[in-house]
Amino acid sequence: MTKILIIGGGGMVGQKLAARIAAGGLDSISEPEVTLFDMGFAEGGAPAAERMTGNLTDSALIAELAARKFDIIYHLASIVSGEAESNFDLGWAVNMFPTWELLEGLRRAHEASGGTYVPKVIFTSSIAVFGGPYPDKIADEFLSAPQTSYGAQKVICETQIADFARKGFIDGFSIRLPTICVRPGKANLAASSFFSGIIREPLNGVEAILPVEDTVRHWHASPRSAAKFLTHAATMDTARLKGRRALNMPGLSCTVAEQIEALRRVAGQKAVDLIKPQPDETIMRIGGGWPRDFEPQRAIALGFEAESSFDEIIQVYLEDDLP
Amino acid sequence: MTKILIIGGGGMVGQKLAARIAAGGLDSISEPEVTLFDMGFAEGGAPAAERMTGNLTDSALIAELAARKFDIIYHLASIVSGEAESNFDLGWAVNMFPTWELLEGLRRAHEASGGTYVPKVIFTSSIAVFGGPYPDKIADEFLSAPQTSYGAQKVICETQIADFARKGFIDGFSIRLPTICVRPGKANLAASSFFSGIIREPLNGVEAILPVEDTVRHWHASPRSAAKFLTHAATMDTARLKGRRALNMPGLSCTVAEQIEALRRVAGQKAVDLIKPQPDETIMRIGGGWPRDFEPQRAIALGFEAESSFDEIIQVYLEDDLP
Repeated sequence: MTKILIIGGGGMVGQKLAARIAAGGLDSISEPEVTLFDMGFAEGGAPAAERMTGNLTDSALIAELAARKFDIIYHLASIVSGEAESNFDLGWAVNMFPTWELLEGLRRAHEASGGTYVPKVIFTSSIAVFGGPYPDKIADEFLSAPQTSYGAQKVICETQIADFARKGFIDGFSIRLPTICVRPGKANLAASSFFSGIIREPLNGVEAILPVEDTVRHWHASPRSAAKFLTHAATMDTARLKGRRALNMPGLSCTVAEQIEALRRVAGQKAVDLIKPQPDETIMRIGGGWPRDFEPQRAIALGFEAESSFDEIIQVYLEDDLP
Repeated sequence: MTKILIIGGGGMVGQKLAARIAAGGLDSISEPEVTLFDMGFAEGGAPAAERMTGNLTDSALIAELAARKFDIIYHLASIVSGEAESNFDLGWAVNMFPTWELLEGLRRAHEASGGTYVPKVIFTSSIAVFGGPYPDKIADEFLSAPQTSYGAQKVICETQIADFARKGFIDGFSIRLPTICVRPGKANLAASSFFSGIIREPLNGVEAILPVEDTVRHWHASPRSAAKFLTHAATMDTARLKGRRALNMPGLSCTVAEQIEALRRVAGQKAVDLIKPQPDETIMRIGGGWPRDFEPQRAIALGFEAESSFDEIIQVYLEDDLP
């Protein structure tokens, strides 16, 4: 039996991951038994052996979780970008300190085991670790210079995880997710929410606001790709990382105009007509700082894969998430 | 009057900085009044208005220091690389958490002042934030991938300082020092200690061990340059940093053979004969991970300067530090 913990298991990506594991997505791993940890869970949802409810800032609870000797620990939980920016204290309290507490707990378990317990730790970082000005394509050796507290917190967690792994206390690394698109369900408060909205709403017969110029270019992967990144990360040979334990994930670079053309091909002009341009200065200003394109050679060489056209990304939404 | 705090003010670089300030090194700043903070102070030493003794891990003391509203705060203190590697707990306890406590204290003081108090914070980071494989010259946009806990701790402090500065709580940035050479006084336990030893010992008529091949290339600046970086950092217009608040300092790239040739030119064959090759596998292995050369264009454009030959570096030792 392989004990798996998903911190943030109630969230969108956590649920996709749990469902994928239940469907055999960790095929080389024997008898995965999944524990989901989150602040709460919607009814129904992905199958799991156990659902635990709690708060990441409860350090006693984190220590207790760490002591349970999970074989694989996914850490997906965080305060989202916009909230970490508006609530500085909460962002750091949730996005930095609990990761440290988790790592320290895992080190204690490692030491108590005489060094035999070395859990795999997979952390979801983000392209928010980057800040402009950017080259046309961001290569694997480009610096992290975050321009949000969320991005800064991700850099710090990446750095701690890499050092605990280098010392052999854990075997872990960080994957930097593209913007996940098309997100199912309702719009969230992220400034980037419209990238999903302009596709999802029209496919559901609902109007969507487009707050930026259609020339804006961005970096996307589907929720299905995010779940696949995570299962691949758990089974990949981490010795191949050679001391660089934060990986830019593959994705698809396209403009909003290209997104809209793909929507037209898949769902016709009627769907496109539901997109209402309504420029929003704030979102345009924030969006000016977003990465546009990557060259994630290392991740590709390590076997990570994403979509190669926005048509495919829409198709994934239709197959996996259309209500 | 300008209130200046030097955390780590008892150390070699802290003392050089205090002496430089006392000699008018902050010429554009009116009436600098220097407080030195460290675990202890040697007798004599650089002039200061106040010497405070304490431990960085005493968070109440750090909060108290932060509340004293210094105009300029230099944070130079840390557990050195070798010790942070052998004593994992101590390294993180001293090199990460106190910086957070300091920043939080400064934020409280900023907020209590209604936003008018925005101290300048200058943090000494290190080229230890980098990890190989390297390009021939490390450019300003090269990633941080530290291969020591010390380097990881420096990355984390840099990232926190940049975010607190971005939010306007402080006005701060980090300078990544080259290896400081020729260090005065006794050899320390750093693996890189021999870079100074093979020059300093012969100039004092004493034998020195060379533990690596003389083809090893490394990145150096003098103690005088380190102090000049720090005074320039305090007077420079930080708006020119444009959101990238960690700077690779200028330095001199040379091989050990080039160091030895410079010593021969300055002090003759008799001095060179005091260098005894004695290969040390451990030091050679660690040294294989050190950066060799940089292209610090941003720092140079911002007015930072270092030596342009190793002869000059030896000359600085003769002028400033030869007993």
